[in-house]
Amino acid sequence: MIDPVALAQRLIAAESVTPARGPVFDVLEDALVPLGFAVDRFTVGEAPDGPVENMLAVRGDGPRHFAFAGHVDVVPAGEGWSPWSADIRDGLLYGRGAVDMKGAVAAFVAAASRSDVGTLSLIITGDEEGPATYGTRALIDRMATRRLVPDLCLVGEPTSTARLGDMVKIGRRGSVNIWIEVAGRQGHVAYPHLADNPIPRLVALLAAIEAVTLDDGTDWFQPSNIEITDITVGNPATNVIPAKASARISIRFNDRHTGDSLVARIAALAEKHGATVTARISGEAFLTAPGDFSTLVADAIQGVTGLVPDLSTTGGTSDARFLSKLCPVVEFGLLNATMHKVDEAVAVADLHRLTDIYAAIIDAALADAHL
Amino acid sequence: MIDPVALAQRLIAAESVTPARGPVFDVLEDALVPLGFAVDRFTVGEAPDGPVENMLAVRGDGPRHFAFAGHVDVVPAGEGWSPWSADIRDGLLYGRGAVDMKGAVAAFVAAASRSDVGTLSLIITGDEEGPATYGTRALIDRMATRRLVPDLCLVGEPTSTARLGDMVKIGRRGSVNIWIEVAGRQGHVAYPHLADNPIPRLVALLAAIEAVTLDDGTDWFQPSNIEITDITVGNPATNVIPAKASARISIRFNDRHTGDSLVARIAALAEKHGATVTARISGEAFLTAPGDFSTLVADAIQGVTGLVPDLSTTGGTSDARFLSKLCPVVEFGLLNATMHKVDEAVAVADLHRLTDIYAAIIDAALADAHL
Repeated sequence: MIDPVALAQRLIAAESVTPARGPVFDVLEDALVPLGFAVDRFTVGEAPDGPVENMLAVRGDGPRHFAFAGHVDVVPAGEGWSPWSADIRDGLLYGRGAVDMKGAVAAFVAAASRSDVGTLSLIITGDEEGPATYGTRALIDRMATRRLVPDLCLVGEPTSTARLGDMVKIGRRGSVNIWIEVAGRQGHVAYPHLADNPIPRLVALLAAIEAVTLDDGTDWFQPSNIEITDITVGNPATNVIPAKASARISIRFNDRHTGDSLVARIAALAEKHGATVTARISGEAFLTAPGDFSTLVADAIQGVTGLVPDLSTTGGTSDARFLSKLCPVVEFGLLNATMHKVDEAVAVADLHRLTDIYAAIIDAALADAHL
Repeated sequence: MIDPVALAQRLIAAESVTPARGPVFDVLEDALVPLGFAVDRFTVGEAPDGPVENMLAVRGDGPRHFAFAGHVDVVPAGEGWSPWSADIRDGLLYGRGAVDMKGAVAAFVAAASRSDVGTLSLIITGDEEGPATYGTRALIDRMATRRLVPDLCLVGEPTSTARLGDMVKIGRRGSVNIWIEVAGRQGHVAYPHLADNPIPRLVALLAAIEAVTLDDGTDWFQPSNIEITDITVGNPATNVIPAKASARISIRFNDRHTGDSLVARIAALAEKHGATVTARISGEAFLTAPGDFSTLVADAIQGVTGLVPDLSTTGGTSDARFLSKLCPVVEFGLLNATMHKVDEAVAVADLHRLTDIYAAIIDAALADAHL
């Protein structure tokens, strides 16, 4: 039986600012191999988005396959503290990654040390906090090559808000960034008829985009939202009409839309105003509709904490956007209040409770033939 | 009798990229003193807009006072030619300032050498091409101190377009630049309810400004015009809602408006959208309504060239915006096709014809007791 607190401390002490490689994976491998896991570590990608180390650890050959997904990279430390010392003070374990998400990884390994039924896997990346080009996507490719398909997947992101167990994520909005450019013809403001100012067309287009209502939300999602995040002209001369104007928008969208449908819609609006667009889809929306899996997780949480968790789709994207293509995905983990902040910390008691919850989820997921 | 071509060559050879000081004024003083002018040179201002040298040259004490205004500074050379050699090739005198406006200054001095009636003055600045903070405005202050008030003033800017004499300027539009700023609250695009994006308010304000029609023009002016010349947000992060957004507009306006009235109008619109403005009025509109003075100038042009000039108010601002507060102002000078360009050049024949025209204007202006 592994102690989740001691393992979390060892993981935190292994510095692993994104992208993570080497020592932090050594700590994890040293914990998993004695538990019977076959550990597959591989490094992929080149600069600037790589190289990235990933790990696929699998144990058992039962008919049902339950997967835990997470990451061991962390965001940079920030100033004014020592994020790698993993000190415990007043019942709190401090360190970068304490809640996001080395603490949850340690809790899941500890939970796995209490069980030996079915097929259990850990899908662990060294790049969730960075561009994520060679992280979970590469792990999914590796699993496809090895014909590994989980029946259910739990992502250990810190989803709890005020108390451990108060929130589970059953979906995430999608995200797309679109760059807009309007070309004109430079000239002198005293002779506007000899120039073609691109700014009025950009302003009209952005006003039209602002007027768009994508939807009114769904049972499980808040309304999709468009934000204009930047406008650039870059014309220092007061008497010059500029040659081009550009803008960037960010759309967070629910499962009524796809990235492609939104890009096409904005492109059609842009064309009317003589603008061109380029887009980058960061992730599609996904939803694991409330049902057996979310009930299983909620029951495990309630059994340990007494809380009935909210089933939420709020917040930013996570690697669940990739994993949801494999099987139903639910996200549950520690409190997110201190994530990415100075003095990131987890309650030692929460690490033990999370271990209990994860152990209950493993048991239920691998026992229940209906799932 | 002074040769306008030889004097223009000496002026061009005295390098005087704006702000001009020293040698170019020495050349002018050496030409004017033998003609009986009392030359008053003074240097004013500090960095960044100064110091600037100016010259006030006055001859005679007749009851009527005719003034010529101009400048001996020039814009930078540009690449690919030798702008200070003042070579004559195929009947063209090449050099920076050939038409804007050392050529006209030389022609006026040559015209003055043919006459000795009335009171004649030259109002010459070393900063018309730059910020003009310490140029003609300082000369007007100097004239006020000396109680010198011209009855009429001719500005020698290059107003001709296709042939010498085809256009006279009897007015200029005013110019004001307005900086607009909208403040918001920074945040994450995934949580827009926790932020306040300033861009939609800026876009709505700019759309409202674009919808404004200031006027439909007048008998002598084209319609006033608003151009949005810049927008700045400066937000490189795709997932961040920015804290502020700003824009800059340029208004060129006719005599239906004042700079202050336009700033007040834009400020009122801005306030509705939660924006603030700061403004800089570069110059008010002015009009010397067609009448005796413009007829006098047109008659002189027609007598020499046979052309009947258009009376125009087009183009950018000139120092006439300051001088028009003293007395009626008309602008007439060489062809503007090559001004500010590489290979700026004036036809030698045009310098002689312009001298003839200026001489006829001096005679008529100082002889005609009705003006």
